Amino acid sequence: MAELTKLQAVLDHVDADFNNSLARLFELLRIKSISAEPAFAADCKAAADHLAGDLASIGLAADVRPTGGHPAIVARSNGAAGRPHVLFYGHYDVQPVDPLNLWNRPPFEPVIADHADGRKIIVARGAEDDKGQLMTFVEACRAWKSVAGQLPVGVTFVIEGEEEVGSKNFPRFLEQHQADLKADFALVCDTGMWDPNTPAITTSLRGLLYEEVRIKAANRDLHSGLFGGGAQNPIRILTRILGNIHDENGRITIPGFYEGVKDLPPEIFAQWKNLNLSAESFLKPIGLSIPAGEKDRLLIEQLFSRPTCDINGIIGGYTGEGSKTVIPAEASAKVSFRLVEGQQPDKIRKAFRDYVHARLPADCKAEFEDHSSAPAVALDWNMKPLAAARRALTEEWNREALLIGSGGSIPIVADFKRVLGLDTVLVGFGLDDDNIHSPNEKYDLKSFHKGIRSWVRILGALAEAPR
Amino acid sequence: MAELTKLQAVLDHVDADFNNSLARLFELLRIKSISAEPAFAADCKAAADHLAGDLASIGLAADVRPTGGHPAIVARSNGAAGRPHVLFYGHYDVQPVDPLNLWNRPPFEPVIADHADGRKIIVARGAEDDKGQLMTFVEACRAWKSVAGQLPVGVTFVIEGEEEVGSKNFPRFLEQHQADLKADFALVCDTGMWDPNTPAITTSLRGLLYEEVRIKAANRDLHSGLFGGGAQNPIRILTRILGNIHDENGRITIPGFYEGVKDLPPEIFAQWKNLNLSAESFLKPIGLSIPAGEKDRLLIEQLFSRPTCDINGIIGGYTGEGSKTVIPAEASAKVSFRLVEGQQPDKIRKAFRDYVHARLPADCKAEFEDHSSAPAVALDWNMKPLAAARRALTEEWNREALLIGSGGSIPIVADFKRVLGLDTVLVGFGLDDDNIHSPNEKYDLKSFHKGIRSWVRILGALAEAPR
Repeated sequence: MAELTKLQAVLDHVDADFNNSLARLFELLRIKSISAEPAFAADCKAAADHLAGDLASIGLAADVRPTGGHPAIVARSNGAAGRPHVLFYGHYDVQPVDPLNLWNRPPFEPVIADHADGRKIIVARGAEDDKGQLMTFVEACRAWKSVAGQLPVGVTFVIEGEEEVGSKNFPRFLEQHQADLKADFALVCDTGMWDPNTPAITTSLRGLLYEEVRIKAANRDLHSGLFGGGAQNPIRILTRILGNIHDENGRITIPGFYEGVKDLPPEIFAQWKNLNLSAESFLKPIGLSIPAGEKDRLLIEQLFSRPTCDINGIIGGYTGEGSKTVIPAEASAKVSFRLVEGQQPDKIRKAFRDYVHARLPADCKAEFEDHSSAPAVALDWNMKPLAAARRALTEEWNREALLIGSGGSIPIVADFKRVLGLDTVLVGFGLDDDNIHSPNEKYDLKSFHKGIRSWVRILGALAEAPR
Repeated sequence: MAELTKLQAVLDHVDADFNNSLARLFELLRIKSISAEPAFAADCKAAADHLAGDLASIGLAADVRPTGGHPAIVARSNGAAGRPHVLFYGHYDVQPVDPLNLWNRPPFEPVIADHADGRKIIVARGAEDDKGQLMTFVEACRAWKSVAGQLPVGVTFVIEGEEEVGSKNFPRFLEQHQADLKADFALVCDTGMWDPNTPAITTSLRGLLYEEVRIKAANRDLHSGLFGGGAQNPIRILTRILGNIHDENGRITIPGFYEGVKDLPPEIFAQWKNLNLSAESFLKPIGLSIPAGEKDRLLIEQLFSRPTCDINGIIGGYTGEGSKTVIPAEASAKVSFRLVEGQQPDKIRKAFRDYVHARLPADCKAEFEDHSSAPAVALDWNMKPLAAARRALTEEWNREALLIGSGGSIPIVADFKRVLGLDTVLVGFGLDDDNIHSPNEKYDLKSFHKGIRSWVRILGALAEAPR
């Protein structure tokens, strides 16, 4: 069969087998693999076993391997001589589902639903992040195997179960299994499209520093009538510190925070400006209208190339029904920073902790917990497999695939480079309205279907790409 | 029996019967009458029934009467002709017990324990506030009845079950039962001593305004990587607003907040200054050292005569174990203000809400809930029964009884004046280290014992006081 005919046959098979692809995705979505909550450890193991079994069923040598936390899967299919070998990464773990009362349906009972604007969507925790996304690649491999008997390139899968809790054990896992993970470059399916019709490859990722801070004042809870005015209140201190991290212009006031942060190269700035991302298009769907970042930056810069600070959680004192006149002994917050190229997580951590200590009354204490950190990633726009992937995406979607940044963090991209010496191509089919990490997470049926087709084309294109 | 001999006989009876007094207090403490939590409504009713039964057992005409919430008790014993009639107020409801893990013992299993410095203490939720305090008066009445066959003055008890949730139904209850509550003045046992050896009568009380504020930003929880920097975070807004309510000098920045607030009259300021309340003595026991109020005010002013703002609770985003990269859709806080003479709760409520709205980004919303409010109370230092009560306290404790202010709020004092036309004498035996509203609440055994003896003397003294 000529290459082009073969490709078309694989794509046709994807279309014909799509209902089965969907059923297989649903099976995976039904497994409650919440990595953050110890009660779901057995479910995480079940998800790993299920995926390894599925990969074995399409002819890969697959096994589940222990890590310091939830297990990872390694599966391998050697390519023909002279063909490139790729390392595909995904994660089977998902975010917690609270607040559960905001879900329209149970989060682990996937369904096809109608989106308000008529799009068909798959609704479930993990529908997009990352079960739906990783299954686009699995299904593409299945289709190639089924039609052509073999994959056009060599593929090693490495699928972890701790991405949503900071991948703490994964770098060590990569070191331990280096020999089995050799490849020419890595592919990751955990990013988004530019819009529902425009495919994209992500070439920069923000880093992450996630801290927890706890302020302690009195040695016990106090009555706010008897002690109010005289005794310090840790919520007052915490809000005072956190409430002044941003200045009036949305700029972060922590000394040294912007050290090393560079402006975009003029040509990239020009390209991004051309994309014309407006508050109307980006914020209106989530009920907002005013960009919250630095006032002198484009919204697309605020999201892709500028560092941020967000308070992800705060708690202190009485939070039940009604009222209680208490001055609590302590209050705490979870605070994360999205970092960009030039910022060192360790330096930012120290700057944040110094900032807190400098604002602390002498009779109060601050305690910190480091949840996770990862530097930002900036990939080479001229990396060779990028051109092949871009061409394949453009063909599938009939729209020029864009090279964009992402505000999110995928720490393993830096680990692939550091531990395995691999560059990464980030292709994904997520959309801004997928509600990942939120109630009612969804994945467009079109993303799943054309995502599979996209990988079929990319695998074909990579077989011919220069290495 | 001569009056003095009779008084001594009653005091002797208190001493001889003290173990039984303690057993009766323990019975009341075992009832879980937490008014804030609907699950304990039956316990509140049980506490009311128990108290009414106890008052009937000493010969009062007692009954439990419904209110819009938890029931109240009214019990009456007419005095001899020509003797004054007093209205005694207390409350049987208690604060919630969370955080339960900080209690050394189950909060509703009272015990006698040894305080670190050797004092004997009664430990339980409500040991002081207000079950222990109100039982000092009940036991004093029991002793008079037992020895003399009748009370030296007429007494009406009114005991409510919603003080800890703002006494919302109590003013209406007073209106409905006015005819049964006629008296010459009111007595309240819900305040403290100056120190463990110095009795005090409280002549001013701060008022209270308790608000809940909820900030809403996006229409759903967002991923902080994809949206961070571009989308507003309600915790950022909430901390920014609340964190700037106090300026660098501890002064409250809400426009108009101090309007109408007067400085102390010079003679009261001089008396208070003489009491020499130090940070060392007041703050060190709770693990603090720096007064948190307005820097140009004495600590005793910060606590008794200056208005305050405290954040009693705050919650938003992910507050479980570990980390979650979420920008929540909303965040909320419980904020209370202690008010002083000259401040109107309604005006302060409006000023606070205006303050929040003025600092809100145009695409975010603020919602408010009014939990309770009460104006400050300033009693007449020359009120006639005050002199008799002061003399009786001085005799019992062998130390001049002080006239002091209290930082707490007892809203019913204003209601007694407004609805029933009664002035109130506030006498209580609480101490600063009683942990009221906190884990391990306690009441000194000495407070309970000498509290009963104090009321025995006060009842005797009031019988002879000019009306």
